[in-house]
Amino acid sequence: MTEGVETLVLEDSGYIGLVLEKLVSADLKVGDTLTIIGSDQEYTGILMPRASVGANSDHIVLKLENGYNIGVRLSAKAKVKKTKSRIVKKAKSSSKLDFKSHLPTVSILSTGGTIASKVDYQTGAVNPALTAQDLYDTIPELQKHVNIRAEIVMSKLSENISPSDWTIIAKKAASHIRDGIDGLVIAHGTDTLSYTGAALSFALQNLPVPIALVGSQRSSDRPSSDASLNLIHATDFVSRGNIAEVSIVMHGETSDSFTYAHRAVRTRKCHTSRRDAFQSINSTPLFRIDNSGITELVTPICRRDSSRKISVKPKFEKKVALIKIHPGTSPNLIDFLTSSGFRGIVLEGTGLGHSSKNLQEAISSAIESDILVAMTSQCINGRINMNVYRSGVELLECGVIPCEDMIAETALVKMMWILGNTQSIKKARKQMVTNLVGEIGMRSEYEEYHYDVEGDAD
Amino acid sequence: MTEGVETLVLEDSGYIGLVLEKLVSADLKVGDTLTIIGSDQEYTGILMPRASVGANSDHIVLKLENGYNIGVRLSAKAKVKKTKSRIVKKAKSSSKLDFKSHLPTVSILSTGGTIASKVDYQTGAVNPALTAQDLYDTIPELQKHVNIRAEIVMSKLSENISPSDWTIIAKKAASHIRDGIDGLVIAHGTDTLSYTGAALSFALQNLPVPIALVGSQRSSDRPSSDASLNLIHATDFVSRGNIAEVSIVMHGETSDSFTYAHRAVRTRKCHTSRRDAFQSINSTPLFRIDNSGITELVTPICRRDSSRKISVKPKFEKKVALIKIHPGTSPNLIDFLTSSGFRGIVLEGTGLGHSSKNLQEAISSAIESDILVAMTSQCINGRINMNVYRSGVELLECGVIPCEDMIAETALVKMMWILGNTQSIKKARKQMVTNLVGEIGMRSEYEEYHYDVEGDAD
Repeated sequence: MTEGVETLVLEDSGYIGLVLEKLVSADLKVGDTLTIIGSDQEYTGILMPRASVGANSDHIVLKLENGYNIGVRLSAKAKVKKTKSRIVKKAKSSSKLDFKSHLPTVSILSTGGTIASKVDYQTGAVNPALTAQDLYDTIPELQKHVNIRAEIVMSKLSENISPSDWTIIAKKAASHIRDGIDGLVIAHGTDTLSYTGAALSFALQNLPVPIALVGSQRSSDRPSSDASLNLIHATDFVSRGNIAEVSIVMHGETSDSFTYAHRAVRTRKCHTSRRDAFQSINSTPLFRIDNSGITELVTPICRRDSSRKISVKPKFEKKVALIKIHPGTSPNLIDFLTSSGFRGIVLEGTGLGHSSKNLQEAISSAIESDILVAMTSQCINGRINMNVYRSGVELLECGVIPCEDMIAETALVKMMWILGNTQSIKKARKQMVTNLVGEIGMRSEYEEYHYDVEGDAD
Repeated sequence: MTEGVETLVLEDSGYIGLVLEKLVSADLKVGDTLTIIGSDQEYTGILMPRASVGANSDHIVLKLENGYNIGVRLSAKAKVKKTKSRIVKKAKSSSKLDFKSHLPTVSILSTGGTIASKVDYQTGAVNPALTAQDLYDTIPELQKHVNIRAEIVMSKLSENISPSDWTIIAKKAASHIRDGIDGLVIAHGTDTLSYTGAALSFALQNLPVPIALVGSQRSSDRPSSDASLNLIHATDFVSRGNIAEVSIVMHGETSDSFTYAHRAVRTRKCHTSRRDAFQSINSTPLFRIDNSGITELVTPICRRDSSRKISVKPKFEKKVALIKIHPGTSPNLIDFLTSSGFRGIVLEGTGLGHSSKNLQEAISSAIESDILVAMTSQCINGRINMNVYRSGVELLECGVIPCEDMIAETALVKMMWILGNTQSIKKARKQMVTNLVGEIGMRSEYEEYHYDVEGDAD
């Protein structure tokens, strides 16, 4: 419902059969207000187009006065009548986009997704556009504190963002930063937001100013949308936060009270729909942002320094796979990757970083073919330790690279980036286990004392 | 370090080079007590064998008096001396195994892993054995409340447990239950414990009594081990808890205060090493077990009923794969599964259940080849909803089966089980979306009112 829906023609709006018939005979168009009269209930709202053609074909989607969209099942007996024709809006007079020299300047790049959209409140149609003007119109609060430069880099649902898109976004981000802005916000769909965040963390080196990726779990035409708060906080944060890293700014809890700035390489989307879906894994968020300001939560952080010159290494190797190990994983799957010219495999092993014995030969043979094979854990939380059990020790002996407490998604992106920038397996192996931008955490204090306390990683 | 280490011969104990030399010249054997004298510190403990040959070859592993194992790095200058020879233990006199007719009877099956092990406290060697006698010796508390029957079904680290092992365990479990026991405990390694739990949930039907799987995150030779509490609670729970489902009993928090009984199909290991690693996903645990008793947390629960006759459907189809979608996932991977005779694929999609557009053709072609393709979310928490965005709608139109709020691991096991028991694709599709044993939760209340509130699933 939130993208690509721009037509007002009823026949193209997703309705079929009985429902379409009733709508046509009531002379209804998308955007009109209608009332559905059932045997014991009435619903009044604006007729919305349908995103879903297949399922629930007997439902009408209405936007209620409170802003929510609901689906009402239409029984054969129910009546439908038009109560108001849609209002065709005139172009708004633009608010002024004055450059105020005493304010910081922030660039906002949009890549697509729910957040990078402008909603027509009459039709519910969502246009994949985000210009500075759109932003000022939608969120007037923004212009109080910053000058905004906005650019549409691409318009993609984030499930369609590919490693080659990361390259485009990285280059565009670098170009804005070289212009001397004070901070950069990237609006992005939430599905793969943390993958892109990790990609930029590796690709953009020697950052002088912060970058915040921001998304929205609910489309901005809904009263429960998190788009405004996330965008306002992200913009405020990059304009004055004392940091020069890539972070992800999203709701800290389900209510509209505060956001966190997470270190991108440590973040994953941990819920399909909650507004606080994004969480820092094996680490704490970097900053908390609320009405009282920006509170720093951890050190060390790479600090803002306008004298630094950004450098860009935007290449990513696509022939890298992420394989989650499970009972019954076929060794043929690994063999297929080996014979298909893959250059890297990140395993999501079980527990402390294990795979079943019957995969060892395939893994070993991949490594002998100069494929980089690294181990993470499907537990998500905690550190792998391949020295505790025989299964881990044997994989290390095969040459599997232990990824410590790095999350699997970040390990994948890191490997794609490393292999995009070097042909040397030796160098690549070394870089995988080196903490480059905070993606690998320190071991516990025991190591400081030359202790290896077995099995203890919490 | 916890399995397969049974030798006391120093040369086979994993030590090499300088460390081996020093140990040999001090006439040390595994099991002896030694003192390491460094420039500013001394360590005294029992010499342990090393699991890890490759890494840290300059470390000696010592068991300290407090039971912890530590690795001490040996500098060239450090001295090593023997302070006590190992004590060779005599066979213990057995405690009596009387059958007390007024007590409930519980069977404990061991499959391997850290929990199903008996530790020799002198050598630290862990023997993969778990007889009733071993249990009484190790955990005398057990015999106060129940009669125990124990059987070693297999002795495997759980990363090596395969779907054909599930079949063996299911049959053995059914055989014990048919003997009229009051409850069944299965000791299992933690790595794939929840996969086995899900497998038994589907394979064992019409259960008269409860089954609890139990594991240990820390080996039982350590003071911080969770083995005893988990085993005592699991045994107590199945002996008198009013439930006839498959559950997982593990620590509820990091301290030794209480355990939870989770519904197995809803549980996943969410931390590599913490004792409270196991968590209920998209649901709450079923029971809380502590010193004050067994507290029920949710209903509905399938209740204990000794008149019920168990039936077993222990077959699992191995040709089922779990594929986690990420930016850059190659369609060739799906095509490979299609051309290799796979019968099912569970996708871990992004967000609400999406994959990138460029995978659609491969997915569609798999489905046309009668491969069952189902969608779960890599977010882990929350429900998928493929009706919100175009990417989801298009996958539904291809014939992808939406797995609602089922976790990916359970969806995989369920599909293996369904395809092991039917050749009918139509029947298999229907079973995948039907809640069989609590693996799929109810939709939110909105559905009760025929509402589809888009994007809302929390």
